[in-house]
Amino acid sequence: MPKKIGILGGGQLAQMMISRALEMGLKPWVYSSHKEDPAQQICPNRVLGPMDHSKKIKAFLDKVDAATFESEFLDATLLEKLDTDNKLSPKPATMGLFQDRLTQKQFLDDHKVPTTPWKKVSTADELNEAMNHLGLPLVLKKRHGGYDGYGTFILKNKAQVKKFKETQLSANKTGFIAEAWVPFQRELALLFVRDKSGQVQTYPLVESFQKDSRCFWVKGPVKHAKISTLTRPFKKALNQQNYVGVIAMEIFDRGSSLYVNELAPRVHNSGHYSQNAGSMSQFEAHVRTLLEEPLPTIRVEESGFSMVNLLGPDQAIKNLSPQLHGEGQLHWYGKKDSRPGRKMGHINTQSSTPNKALNKALKSLKEFYYE
Amino acid sequence: MPKKIGILGGGQLAQMMISRALEMGLKPWVYSSHKEDPAQQICPNRVLGPMDHSKKIKAFLDKVDAATFESEFLDATLLEKLDTDNKLSPKPATMGLFQDRLTQKQFLDDHKVPTTPWKKVSTADELNEAMNHLGLPLVLKKRHGGYDGYGTFILKNKAQVKKFKETQLSANKTGFIAEAWVPFQRELALLFVRDKSGQVQTYPLVESFQKDSRCFWVKGPVKHAKISTLTRPFKKALNQQNYVGVIAMEIFDRGSSLYVNELAPRVHNSGHYSQNAGSMSQFEAHVRTLLEEPLPTIRVEESGFSMVNLLGPDQAIKNLSPQLHGEGQLHWYGKKDSRPGRKMGHINTQSSTPNKALNKALKSLKEFYYE
Repeated sequence: MPKKIGILGGGQLAQMMISRALEMGLKPWVYSSHKEDPAQQICPNRVLGPMDHSKKIKAFLDKVDAATFESEFLDATLLEKLDTDNKLSPKPATMGLFQDRLTQKQFLDDHKVPTTPWKKVSTADELNEAMNHLGLPLVLKKRHGGYDGYGTFILKNKAQVKKFKETQLSANKTGFIAEAWVPFQRELALLFVRDKSGQVQTYPLVESFQKDSRCFWVKGPVKHAKISTLTRPFKKALNQQNYVGVIAMEIFDRGSSLYVNELAPRVHNSGHYSQNAGSMSQFEAHVRTLLEEPLPTIRVEESGFSMVNLLGPDQAIKNLSPQLHGEGQLHWYGKKDSRPGRKMGHINTQSSTPNKALNKALKSLKEFYYE
Repeated sequence: MPKKIGILGGGQLAQMMISRALEMGLKPWVYSSHKEDPAQQICPNRVLGPMDHSKKIKAFLDKVDAATFESEFLDATLLEKLDTDNKLSPKPATMGLFQDRLTQKQFLDDHKVPTTPWKKVSTADELNEAMNHLGLPLVLKKRHGGYDGYGTFILKNKAQVKKFKETQLSANKTGFIAEAWVPFQRELALLFVRDKSGQVQTYPLVESFQKDSRCFWVKGPVKHAKISTLTRPFKKALNQQNYVGVIAMEIFDRGSSLYVNELAPRVHNSGHYSQNAGSMSQFEAHVRTLLEEPLPTIRVEESGFSMVNLLGPDQAIKNLSPQLHGEGQLHWYGKKDSRPGRKMGHINTQSSTPNKALNKALKSLKEFYYE
């Protein structure tokens, strides 16, 4: 019988894992909370339920041969309790480790992976200490649930620090971490994939550009002389953690040195280009790590590739009809409503250099919006 | 609203068009006769019905914005009658032209596209005349319904001709065409795509290798100095026919000259490699021609690519579980039963040369079957 693969979550990341799993002849199952979720729309085998419903999630895990998730912001403690047969990869405990920015930072420090200097902040005293230690501006991030800039605060002066104490610090129970504000030249991203045999591979290093704290475009491959200062210790860390699956590393490039910004233990927006460049997409790689097999060598031989996100336009639009006149491969998630900045789809392109691929993608993007 | 694309037929060709249409955010609908058809398994919007059911097919065409088919062996006359709003591409009349080997050959002759010499054969006298004119061995092909070697007979001597007269000729109402037996060095294939703006593009020329009359592998790109003797007149023919969609040309390579073997007015097994090489798969290209837009330039820049078919093993197997350990991209159709020689799936590969890609594909094929 074809292997049944369960995906917790119904967004575009789940949708694209399912899409590739279907092509491979696997039997994907989706569990998410809304009938109109992108993954629910295309998956033949679907379960609807709240993301914290013990009984339904347990029944879902019982039904499938192996399972994963598209977002690390689930209840890791609950999942650990429910996953009695160890079907989930990455493990719920690992999800828990990475979903808390404090333990994530601690993990990086423990394994000597360079990251931006940081301090735990849950009281006014700790905030004062962080400011003395790390200086201003100071970046405050919620320990739990932040993404795409949500839950992040940049404190530029003492007045802002004071206001933050009064409005945020007292209201947030789980606390924050404070990070030094790092002026960087550009942001990079690197995908790692570790399979059950313990083999760790990396995808090419890419540059990613954010607009309003959301990924706008990615181009690659790019090179950086210091990349091994991150990859060498991080591969060891993944092995020690017995990590299984794709994991994304966001990186600040300060020119002469690289720092990890943050980690996401899942498939990632910075790897969407791999659907149409290279021998194995991140979605296939992640799904294959759920099975017992070791992965073959992942090759990306394209000399230039790019991805642009199709972010929701300024006003909300219902039932957008996607039409791509330009070059590139359109991936459209089928979200029922557009909101400003919402990730509605993306376009992948390939060319002889990263910049040529990016230009092609931006040209297609323009035609897409303004036909 | 996303465009609704109707596909008549539920096999793997329909499945792969639907798979890409879903990724692009279109709303594909499938019409086919069995719940377990590959396309029915993955398409969220499905209609079940016989392939000659006027009322159901009419209702299906009414429901969608544009439609196509995966096989040219439908009732073209019926479809022409039902397609009152001209939603079908290619047109049913064009389907009729190509599904009859006689009118297909006539079409090639009319447009001066080199093809193997042929004669119409529906009586014993016509068979004698064909033998005198074309010599032995003589290839007899049913005018209607033949594919993958079915409906083809090679008559090597007069005894076989006599037996053919007695057993086949009298039993078949629509008749045959006779072709000269052409000793060829290799078989090639070429995909054309013509969009509604009248632009005709070609994919790279590929070599295809048949085993027991079924496509076993494809590799490319290959070159042939005489290819323009086919492409030049055939592009004119497509324009004159106002053809819309992908059309496949199978070619005999006799070294110094090329002959068209046959045409298939649809996506084709020889183009499956394009799912993972080049800027636009044949499935996307065909679907996009259904919409109003002109296609961008199709680019296949890979220096080597290949595809091997996963043909059913010697004995029937139920519910095969696909597991690819090797390199390449697995596409598995999810057919419920395996039969000897049945197309169950395929593996695409890319490398620096066509032969390296083929070797990689054959290696993965071996691991696939004999793990």
